[in-house]
Amino acid sequence: MIGVFDSGIGGLTVVKALKRLSPSYPILYLGDTARTPYGSKSKRTIIKYSLKNAEFLVRQGARIIVIACNTASSCAPEAIRERFGLPVFEVIGPGAQAAVKVSRKQRIGVIGTRATIVSKAYEQRIQQIQPNAKVYGTPCPLLVPLVEEGWLSKPETAMIIKKYLHPLKNLQIDTLILGCTHYPVLKQLIQRKIGSRVVLVDSAEAAAEKVHAYLRNSGNHSGNHLFDRKIQPESRIFITDTTEQFCKTARLILKDPIPMQIVDL
Amino acid sequence: MIGVFDSGIGGLTVVKALKRLSPSYPILYLGDTARTPYGSKSKRTIIKYSLKNAEFLVRQGARIIVIACNTASSCAPEAIRERFGLPVFEVIGPGAQAAVKVSRKQRIGVIGTRATIVSKAYEQRIQQIQPNAKVYGTPCPLLVPLVEEGWLSKPETAMIIKKYLHPLKNLQIDTLILGCTHYPVLKQLIQRKIGSRVVLVDSAEAAAEKVHAYLRNSGNHSGNHLFDRKIQPESRIFITDTTEQFCKTARLILKDPIPMQIVDL
Repeated sequence: MIGVFDSGIGGLTVVKALKRLSPSYPILYLGDTARTPYGSKSKRTIIKYSLKNAEFLVRQGARIIVIACNTASSCAPEAIRERFGLPVFEVIGPGAQAAVKVSRKQRIGVIGTRATIVSKAYEQRIQQIQPNAKVYGTPCPLLVPLVEEGWLSKPETAMIIKKYLHPLKNLQIDTLILGCTHYPVLKQLIQRKIGSRVVLVDSAEAAAEKVHAYLRNSGNHSGNHLFDRKIQPESRIFITDTTEQFCKTARLILKDPIPMQIVDL
Repeated sequence: MIGVFDSGIGGLTVVKALKRLSPSYPILYLGDTARTPYGSKSKRTIIKYSLKNAEFLVRQGARIIVIACNTASSCAPEAIRERFGLPVFEVIGPGAQAAVKVSRKQRIGVIGTRATIVSKAYEQRIQQIQPNAKVYGTPCPLLVPLVEEGWLSKPETAMIIKKYLHPLKNLQIDTLILGCTHYPVLKQLIQRKIGSRVVLVDSAEAAAEKVHAYLRNSGNHSGNHLFDRKIQPESRIFITDTTEQFCKTARLILKDPIPMQIVDL
């Protein structure tokens, strides 16, 4: 089983991409909706919550962990690897690789939550691959609440996006990383405001491709015990709290819904 | 000691009012910043967190509990009273009373988080006092993140407030309850958008007055053991998580800062 967790519902964009690329692998998704959002919290608290989420998924039978949340990806992968000794995937590395690959001028913008941008995780990863790259991060803390309200095409949302992207536009970036799983649903508006010459990189998509490649490789080895193909359990979604609004956002992302189950961590 | 808790930093507006009205009583404040916000969460989760907060304050020596959070006030007071057998104050009742008192036409609007509005707590309280009153609630979920970003006078904030208040304006309310402790810092903008003829009621202020009256009464009785006047411990603020942004918001509300201490619940 692939265990995927996120601070809330946004990580379902990773699930959606995984289900398209690797439809035969069952997924356990945990959305920590009782403690969402992580993006405004401290590193210490984010690591604590991430370890609890991973522990739950491992107990439910997950054999690899995918951190679908950019904020948690920016600070928790090492702690999870150390604690559980399992393969851990996250969204920052794949997003950084994809951006370096498509950028011609190596002038790359990153938008994300405050915690993700403050961590400089994208910047560090990009400069490990391409030391000459210029990386410009801008926190966009209001975009998650706007998506969760379903304000996807309101003029206020357009104005706020324009305001957030203004400094990046002036810095003449040619590539922009959508460094939060909530942002792909605002892709069209973001593209319009940043301009059609800037390439958008979706970290959720890039992460799913990385997991897909790993599964294909490990599936080719004999003695692969990561997944027992004979047992085909169903994909399941767990959330730590439920409201009508969470269900609406989940339907917005995942057109073909998976039943949700509430759990106490 | 007066124990005050809130989902985050917003409840410091109640602390500020209490310190002005009852300066000789020390306050223990707990802001549950690690799990903030409550306003988008379910009743079940809000009650669970509220009980943990109250338990912490009681262990620290609180002899009365003040729920400074509207969302928690809308669903948790009974559970706390039952569990701890202490006097429990909240913000909804005092806000409702103050609104009924000032409203001439008994056409009262309420703005708050989604959880507060869905609970219909203000509506029920107002109609217990004044059965003929018309109460109109509108959730304003984006105002908390806007305040937490410090976007107090940006045009986007003005537009969003105008959009939220539009239906209430059409309903010709004469009184508007600020049903969330974050909203008083947006008072001027809200007044401008709803019109000068509508009276704004600040629940934080009304709740502090209620607590003040109780303290004055219980202080007049002989054998009052609620507060030992010989011991004068200092007021203290506890938070469950800290970031630069939380500290900024705290300074915005509480001009004369109290040192903060981080705790694990």
